[in-house]
Amino acid sequence: MSDKVNGQWRLAARPSGDLKDTDLTWHEEPVPELKDGELRVRNVYLSVDPTNRIWMTDVEQYMPPVQIGEVMRGAAIGVVEESKNPEFSEGDVVQGVLGWQEYSVTDGAILVKIPSGLPFPLTAYMGLLGHIGATAYFGLLEIGEPKEGETVVVSAAAGAVGSIVGQIAKIKGCRVVGIAGTDEKCKWLTEELGFDAAVNRRSPDFRAQLKAACPDGIDVDFENAGGEILETILGLCNLKARVVLCGLISQYNADTPPPGPSNFPLILMKRLRVEGFIIIDYQPRFMEAIMQLGQWLGQGKLKYRVDLSEGLKTAPAALRDLFAGNNIGKRLVKVSDE
Amino acid sequence: MSDKVNGQWRLAARPSGDLKDTDLTWHEEPVPELKDGELRVRNVYLSVDPTNRIWMTDVEQYMPPVQIGEVMRGAAIGVVEESKNPEFSEGDVVQGVLGWQEYSVTDGAILVKIPSGLPFPLTAYMGLLGHIGATAYFGLLEIGEPKEGETVVVSAAAGAVGSIVGQIAKIKGCRVVGIAGTDEKCKWLTEELGFDAAVNRRSPDFRAQLKAACPDGIDVDFENAGGEILETILGLCNLKARVVLCGLISQYNADTPPPGPSNFPLILMKRLRVEGFIIIDYQPRFMEAIMQLGQWLGQGKLKYRVDLSEGLKTAPAALRDLFAGNNIGKRLVKVSDE
Repeated sequence: MSDKVNGQWRLAARPSGDLKDTDLTWHEEPVPELKDGELRVRNVYLSVDPTNRIWMTDVEQYMPPVQIGEVMRGAAIGVVEESKNPEFSEGDVVQGVLGWQEYSVTDGAILVKIPSGLPFPLTAYMGLLGHIGATAYFGLLEIGEPKEGETVVVSAAAGAVGSIVGQIAKIKGCRVVGIAGTDEKCKWLTEELGFDAAVNRRSPDFRAQLKAACPDGIDVDFENAGGEILETILGLCNLKARVVLCGLISQYNADTPPPGPSNFPLILMKRLRVEGFIIIDYQPRFMEAIMQLGQWLGQGKLKYRVDLSEGLKTAPAALRDLFAGNNIGKRLVKVSDE
Repeated sequence: MSDKVNGQWRLAARPSGDLKDTDLTWHEEPVPELKDGELRVRNVYLSVDPTNRIWMTDVEQYMPPVQIGEVMRGAAIGVVEESKNPEFSEGDVVQGVLGWQEYSVTDGAILVKIPSGLPFPLTAYMGLLGHIGATAYFGLLEIGEPKEGETVVVSAAAGAVGSIVGQIAKIKGCRVVGIAGTDEKCKWLTEELGFDAAVNRRSPDFRAQLKAACPDGIDVDFENAGGEILETILGLCNLKARVVLCGLISQYNADTPPPGPSNFPLILMKRLRVEGFIIIDYQPRFMEAIMQLGQWLGQGKLKYRVDLSEGLKTAPAALRDLFAGNNIGKRLVKVSDE
């Protein structure tokens, strides 16, 4: 046994509705000694994503749900402290599904090494230059197929993925309209990120505002929200519009499945294409996105923002923040110093 | 004025729920004399399609709804009786949106001439070798993209479109499972049309039967029904399955829009592609489908069935039949002798 203590969040109960304090338990245990082939990672930044909430629920999904008693699943970036695996050395920076814990002991099979000497801060690799950026990149370009001059709408636009989607769509010459939950976020989208318009989904005349912001209708919807927002968007879609179904954050807290969009027949009438998208399918092409995004970032064409809280103990609150819409940009938890 | 009398069905009221006798009125008027450029068609076969019901309702759709007082819209095939249009001669057989009436006076702009001397009966051109066959052909092959060995499910499979979709999928080497509303229809699908399996949607254990009929899951759904049938299918879809949304006959009679599928999030989790399809988008490529379908028909690889009633007065009942599921194959009304 090592004398290090590993703080962990373990799933204690399947949440019903909003995540409660009793759904996760804080657990401390000694970090085990390494066996041959293993390495120990000190986690530095934990990525807090809407999908964490899906993993807590026992519904059909794209990965098995986390089991009760298991360490909560989560993507993180960390530093190798000790290695008995020849492919990793002390000091390597690695990324992977390291979990909601301070230390991860792993065989390294699913870890990606972040090369040293890169020009961007480490937090960028948890967002723009990681799974978040790749999600925005492939989802928009491969599924949404936006053409120059088309109108692209992004829901949860001030979130990690949405804020990047909108900027890529601008680079591609589209009219970009963001949907966000506060006026502050809308202001950030238009004034800092260059969105053509942004609409507060909490406005009483949300639909009228969105319609006014899309005078030529909607050609691509990058959907992160679902529910009534999606219904409103479907109503404004043009013939042959594409809906990239990337997230349904409005629904993950629901105990019973909410009904699908009541204007579902518009998919037929307008010959829409509604396509589900999860980044894991694009794993083999990951570097293609990261290279392009890194180039745009270096050219000043992309901006990103990190919303950071200190200490792994803040992770459950950070996840609640996502669902309350309290974050702007990528929500991260700082687990330890770089 | 000609001394001919033109019997017509005119839309009297927007139907609420099932079509009622008072929603259409039988109207007789003299056939007007032809002006220069016009021709008079004596309608022979009227095509009765689920979309007729959509056109009666004032909802957002792919064409303007029929206005109250107008002749009901419908596709038909007929014989030119008199022509003051140089492009048409007496005796020509023409096809187009001729309406629910015995005679149509038209400028011919949207009519298609059926060449004479063709090897198939005229009714074939109202079904397999017309808009129905083209719907099945392009919807399945271009939107569904079935691959050899995949499982294709067809709802409303004993209907005009569905019965052809299944046979094309068999030609393409797929496992084909039909969903229909009676045991008699299911028997027709498997014993006459060569479907691998057919499931009666009214069976109490419909889901279990469908699951058993698709041991490798569902790769393509050619959707004509919607509602609970679509929900059941979504639950059995494989990763990356395609849903060709061609019709939602279970919903056209609804006064208030029924909710969308409650398992809508599966589109995301399984990365499904749900795409609306209406044949009018493929008008320029029509002949491509008709040539191929005609070839298969000539080779005995395709069968079709016509469900005919006598006299234009039977048209409202024929439409009700479609929604009650009383038809097998293409529902036609014989308006006059060939």
